[in-house]
Amino acid sequence: MDEFDIETPATPDLEDPVLIEGLPGVGHVGKLAAEHLLEEFDGELVRRVYSEHFPPQVTVDEGRTELASAEVHAIRDADRDLLVLTGDHQAGDGPGHYRLADAYLDVADEFGVERIYALGGVPTGELVDEPDVVGAATTDGFIDDLEDVGVEFRENEPAGGIVGVSGLLLGLGERRGYEAACLMGETSGYLVDPKSARAVLEVLQQAVDFDVGYDALEDRAEEMEEVVKRIRQMEQSAAPSEEDLRYIG
Amino acid sequence: MDEFDIETPATPDLEDPVLIEGLPGVGHVGKLAAEHLLEEFDGELVRRVYSEHFPPQVTVDEGRTELASAEVHAIRDADRDLLVLTGDHQAGDGPGHYRLADAYLDVADEFGVERIYALGGVPTGELVDEPDVVGAATTDGFIDDLEDVGVEFRENEPAGGIVGVSGLLLGLGERRGYEAACLMGETSGYLVDPKSARAVLEVLQQAVDFDVGYDALEDRAEEMEEVVKRIRQMEQSAAPSEEDLRYIG
Amino acid sequence: MDEFDIETPATPDLEDPVLIEGLPGVGHVGKLAAEHLLEEFDGELVRRVYSEHFPPQVTVDEGRTELASAEVHAIRDADRDLLVLTGDHQAGDGPGHYRLADAYLDVADEFGVERIYALGGVPTGELVDEPDVVGAATTDGFIDDLEDVGVEFRENEPAGGIVGVSGLLLGLGERRGYEAACLMGETSGYLVDPKSARAVLEVLQQAVDFDVGYDALEDRAEEMEEVVKRIRQMEQSAAPSEEDLRYIG
Amino acid sequence: MDEFDIETPATPDLEDPVLIEGLPGVGHVGKLAAEHLLEEFDGELVRRVYSEHFPPQVTVDEGRTELASAEVHAIRDADRDLLVLTGDHQAGDGPGHYRLADAYLDVADEFGVERIYALGGVPTGELVDEPDVVGAATTDGFIDDLEDVGVEFRENEPAGGIVGVSGLLLGLGERRGYEAACLMGETSGYLVDPKSARAVLEVLQQAVDFDVGYDALEDRAEEMEEVVKRIRQMEQSAAPSEEDLRYIG
Repeated sequence: MDEFDIETPATPDLEDPVLIEGLPGVGHVGKLAAEHLLEEFDGELVRRVYSEHFPPQVTVDEGRTELASAEVHAIRDADRDLLVLTGDHQAGDGPGHYRLADAYLDVADEFGVERIYALGGVPTGELVDEPDVVGAATTDGFIDDLEDVGVEFRENEPAGGIVGVSGLLLGLGERRGYEAACLMGETSGYLVDPKSARAVLEVLQQAVDFDVGYDALEDRAEEMEEVVKRIRQMEQSAAPSEEDLRYIG
Repeated sequence: MDEFDIETPATPDLEDPVLIEGLPGVGHVGKLAAEHLLEEFDGELVRRVYSEHFPPQVTVDEGRTELASAEVHAIRDADRDLLVLTGDHQAGDGPGHYRLADAYLDVADEFGVERIYALGGVPTGELVDEPDVVGAATTDGFIDDLEDVGVEFRENEPAGGIVGVSGLLLGLGERRGYEAACLMGETSGYLVDPKSARAVLEVLQQAVDFDVGYDALEDRAEEMEEVVKRIRQMEQSAAPSEEDLRYIG
Repeated sequence: MDEFDIETPATPDLEDPVLIEGLPGVGHVGKLAAEHLLEEFDGELVRRVYSEHFPPQVTVDEGRTELASAEVHAIRDADRDLLVLTGDHQAGDGPGHYRLADAYLDVADEFGVERIYALGGVPTGELVDEPDVVGAATTDGFIDDLEDVGVEFRENEPAGGIVGVSGLLLGLGERRGYEAACLMGETSGYLVDPKSARAVLEVLQQAVDFDVGYDALEDRAEEMEEVVKRIRQMEQSAAPSEEDLRYIG
Repeated sequence: MDEFDIETPATPDLEDPVLIEGLPGVGHVGKLAAEHLLEEFDGELVRRVYSEHFPPQVTVDEGRTELASAEVHAIRDADRDLLVLTGDHQAGDGPGHYRLADAYLDVADEFGVERIYALGGVPTGELVDEPDVVGAATTDGFIDDLEDVGVEFRENEPAGGIVGVSGLLLGLGERRGYEAACLMGETSGYLVDPKSARAVLEVLQQAVDFDVGYDALEDRAEEMEEVVKRIRQMEQSAAPSEEDLRYIG
């Protein structure tokens, strides 16, 4: 294998597509949101990216192995053509993050993408009933558009900047002429958070102009509500350790 | 030295050989199993792989030093020709894992290998009397074959996937057209485990169709039984710390 | 993006400029000092350096993102032409430090720089009322010049040498024919220290021969004095934990 | 700077020189021993090796900075021509260790070296009154020669092999046709140990056939004896923590 090995199972013509990224991160918000789109719509795998910058690992699902990769699916049955970038891994080394982000932007190039949406979560440190969606973007025009659909732009948030592929899709994307934004759902940071993923998608569907149902995500949110209820009961009797809360789901 | 330096002491003609990998890992199960084959059969060193991706280290045996390397031996006195990959080291960096696995697959290429067996252990967290062998493979056909000889394929196991060279022999191997499987003997994860290695080999010899004795491995297993007995006695009087258990052997 | 991506918004003619570096480090002394020059004088951005050796990150300021970079500004309204190197990041990997320092020295080359001043802090472990400025330099002549303006050169200080870009601007700079010095203001190591930054600048302005006001830095120093006062009160009642002191500011 | 930058201040003709390496390591035994040779004999700097694989750092000595490097001196006033490799740093990354060791072997090549001696310490965990010298070598002939001058070759020692440049001078050296040995003085591992360094040199001078005085090393050993005495007194009153003992000197 070379540094990158990119499969191209299909290259459909897309009309003015946007790229939507949802890789693992805080509360798995971005990943849940992107995967929800792939469940609700009829996606076609168009690119699969293998790289030595991913962890040296295969995942196992009912005995079948799969080499670490990222996938790009094309969705053409939404009101707007979408490219959805998902996967289980970030890069394992610093320069690898830059090179993977560049590889993803090459895919965006090939399909004529102009706007990029990176989806993720922003940790609040406590359980959030009605998560807001915090934004960051590469242009003032994009910020205005997103404010119109309810995204909040805050002075010093997220304080530590945006790290990993999401951040670099904006940073490197801007240098290559894309308009890019990151939509971050508020989330405790302790739990897998489908409610926050829904909040992000509700904003996204207005911004991008497509229509999607939330039943599956709602089910997962209700399961998590149960977990949250049990945690709140525990909090009333005794403060749970941070460990108890770490990514239950 | 270049990135890789591969010695080729011999290149015998092999008939339909399978590649068997046993490098260091959980319970040293894979390494014990592969080394047992080299003790029981008459192996010929065919390749030695040096690389700057190995730790910067020589081992010392009675004063003689040996540079970190991996070895491939050909076995032709079993009922089936075998190539056995052994060594003391995994790669020291992420991309190095990918590149070493590729170097090993190049060797498999040269000898016309079609099927690859990566051997290892899967940690259970407790002492196991009769270890099962858990599997993962790149094709459904290979899974069927292995189920026939008693390998278990479980829904979410191993949960963290398969990491390191074993994982990549499957992941990269599949991309290069090999059928590859990982056979993982259940093992506590705390002790060097010859019994688990034997369980793996018993499955392997049925799958590959060769015949091997287990006396040497049996002796080592009995030594470990003694260690286990002492640990169980300790457990009855007082719980041993995890440190007491870590790789005694 | 390649390993480096360097924007060149302007290339003004400078007369005998000196390069002044102030990147993040102990007490943020160097960064505060360099940024103060950019506030007081009329700087023009001449180079912006992007690199995969920076952390994979964008900063966010009121919603607008900016890819990790370092900036070089030219100042021509001081008594002496200055090039000021600032930024929010050190390299993320060892060879990356060398390569970034080389990239910065290339910029110094282009503008005909002969002397380089790296600014920073040296940790004392306790609050310092009147910080001295400790120096290190590549030539005895430069040491003499700096001793004349009050810089202290001590036998074994800093004991651990100078690490990161500051150190390499001296080490690599010397090999490329520059005279280079590091000016390190004494600082506790626990607090952002504008007073130490002022001490460094007061020495620098004599050495380089320019004139600058300190009102803005004075204001920040007074804010920190308040913090220090509260800490001293705390010290009288109870010793604060090291954590309480870590980079308050 | 490229990956390596090697200065060649002199290239004297040497007669059958041996390479002696003494870089930082356990008890600083190798470094003390190699530096003692440079103090006692009249060495000439022949090569200075800079590399991005060293830590990004300058050392500071009375205000003068020096970029991380390794030095090779030629000694021609001993009974045997010597090349002595010293420095303050090991590599900062795994492949860097391999590449630096290769660069050092290139220097050995240029001067026609046939035998290499890597000097170091082997930790015993307790204070040693009369340190033995433990050996490891690339050939049985070399082992025989060293046994003749009192070097001990033990079955499983050092258990963890030999790590870093010392190990690779043997491992890579062997592959390039050198005979190479590592001489390791027993040492507690807690203290800088000039006595162990002397033990190593006494063996080395017999093996290589040169004559050297030990006054300077004796003085340092006596200073350390004082430290050891105080520690033994402390041990009688109360067991000192490991921290108290870590590299006092």
